[in-house]
Amino acid sequence: MPKDNAPIVILVRPQLGENIGAVARAMGNFGCSELRVVAPRDGWPNRKALEMASDGKSIVEAAKVFPDLASAMHDVHIAYAATARARDMAKPALTPQAAMKKIHGQAAKGSRIAFVFGPERTGLENEEVVMCDAIVTIPTAPKNFSLNLGQSAVVLLYEWFKQSAEKKTSARSTQHAALSTKKDWQELFAQLDGYLEDANYYRTAHKKPVMRQNMRNMLLRGAWSEQEIRTFRGMLRILCEGRKPRKS
Amino acid sequence: MPKDNAPIVILVRPQLGENIGAVARAMGNFGCSELRVVAPRDGWPNRKALEMASDGKSIVEAAKVFPDLASAMHDVHIAYAATARARDMAKPALTPQAAMKKIHGQAAKGSRIAFVFGPERTGLENEEVVMCDAIVTIPTAPKNFSLNLGQSAVVLLYEWFKQSAEKKTSARSTQHAALSTKKDWQELFAQLDGYLEDANYYRTAHKKPVMRQNMRNMLLRGAWSEQEIRTFRGMLRILCEGRKPRKS
Repeated sequence: MPKDNAPIVILVRPQLGENIGAVARAMGNFGCSELRVVAPRDGWPNRKALEMASDGKSIVEAAKVFPDLASAMHDVHIAYAATARARDMAKPALTPQAAMKKIHGQAAKGSRIAFVFGPERTGLENEEVVMCDAIVTIPTAPKNFSLNLGQSAVVLLYEWFKQSAEKKTSARSTQHAALSTKKDWQELFAQLDGYLEDANYYRTAHKKPVMRQNMRNMLLRGAWSEQEIRTFRGMLRILCEGRKPRKS
Repeated sequence: MPKDNAPIVILVRPQLGENIGAVARAMGNFGCSELRVVAPRDGWPNRKALEMASDGKSIVEAAKVFPDLASAMHDVHIAYAATARARDMAKPALTPQAAMKKIHGQAAKGSRIAFVFGPERTGLENEEVVMCDAIVTIPTAPKNFSLNLGQSAVVLLYEWFKQSAEKKTSARSTQHAALSTKKDWQELFAQLDGYLEDANYYRTAHKKPVMRQNMRNMLLRGAWSEQEIRTFRGMLRILCEGRKPRKS
């Protein structure tokens, strides 16, 4: 079993090496490493799969090949069949999101999980779907449900990874900068007010309060850091006062 | 504007026709139709894009080509840059899920949204990222963050579609008049640049790109309406040029 409980990916009778490579690349992106290939049309190894895999090349190289789905899933506990349509089959049909929720619970209990994808043109045979525990169907526009094999895999792997990452961290942000205080803002507004008065910006006295308020709201909405407020104030100073020798 | 408020997809300097086609195919799968292509490496039309698009062929056929990102996003209200790394930039960096939550709110108010993707090898230039309102970064395994262009698009479009399917019922309001386009921002920046040059704001040439970039990021973050941009431009004009008789 993968040490991190990541799902195994099984590609059944894939036709194009490019797609095998694309799946492997996505596996690498989303923290999966165990690829199994059932009866690949163009034999094995496959040069195009290696070329297309990019950072997932080692995943292609380590992939195991099986003659049929039954042998490929011999040590799997729970298998999810990716299909474009919810077949007329007495089997749970889940969205990727719902499937991953179940899968994370199952993997936490030690289950070895597999995602099973069929050939590009036809998808999985009904009897292959039957061998799986549930169906995962990616929601699409109703008339346009045919996803490329690599793309289907991306969606499932992304959704799996996302839910596993959610438990560890939340969204990143790039804003390390020091927060600004209300005092910083007040100083900016006072400086700006001075320039605006000098420039006779407010021609009609009765509109002045609303205009000031609007400008404050606009600027505040940027949620500037202390440094950004200083930058803006420096810009205003140079625009309105020109370059001055610094006071020593 | 797409009648259903679906996002526009902008591919900046895409290298491979196959990837353009893959993006178009995914757009069709996930209910998007408006594709814009900036300076495609291999020219336009592109046979491989058409071949790879499958059911998205009509999307490729209807795609519009632009010379640069600025012109491609002239009528866009809010742009999301897809980048593999959260750049060191004072701009919101969101997961696809968080971005789509915001986007659905924005689109409900009538905003025209765009997803912006860079070239396969290098991604977007920093100055292109600066032109966007936020960054979307797909969570990946830390050492393996390079997604294929088509696959990145699949993830964003899937996440968008999934959330739109969840939210079909939410009411739409009408604030069309209030929104600013990227053209409005470009005009503001051009005006500001002129004043800054006149005032000799940039004393050291090598710092100029970063300073311009920071100022753009700060101002964009306020998400100003068209009226607010006009207000700010009017204020700048009076501060820098003084009161002038109005043109009649």
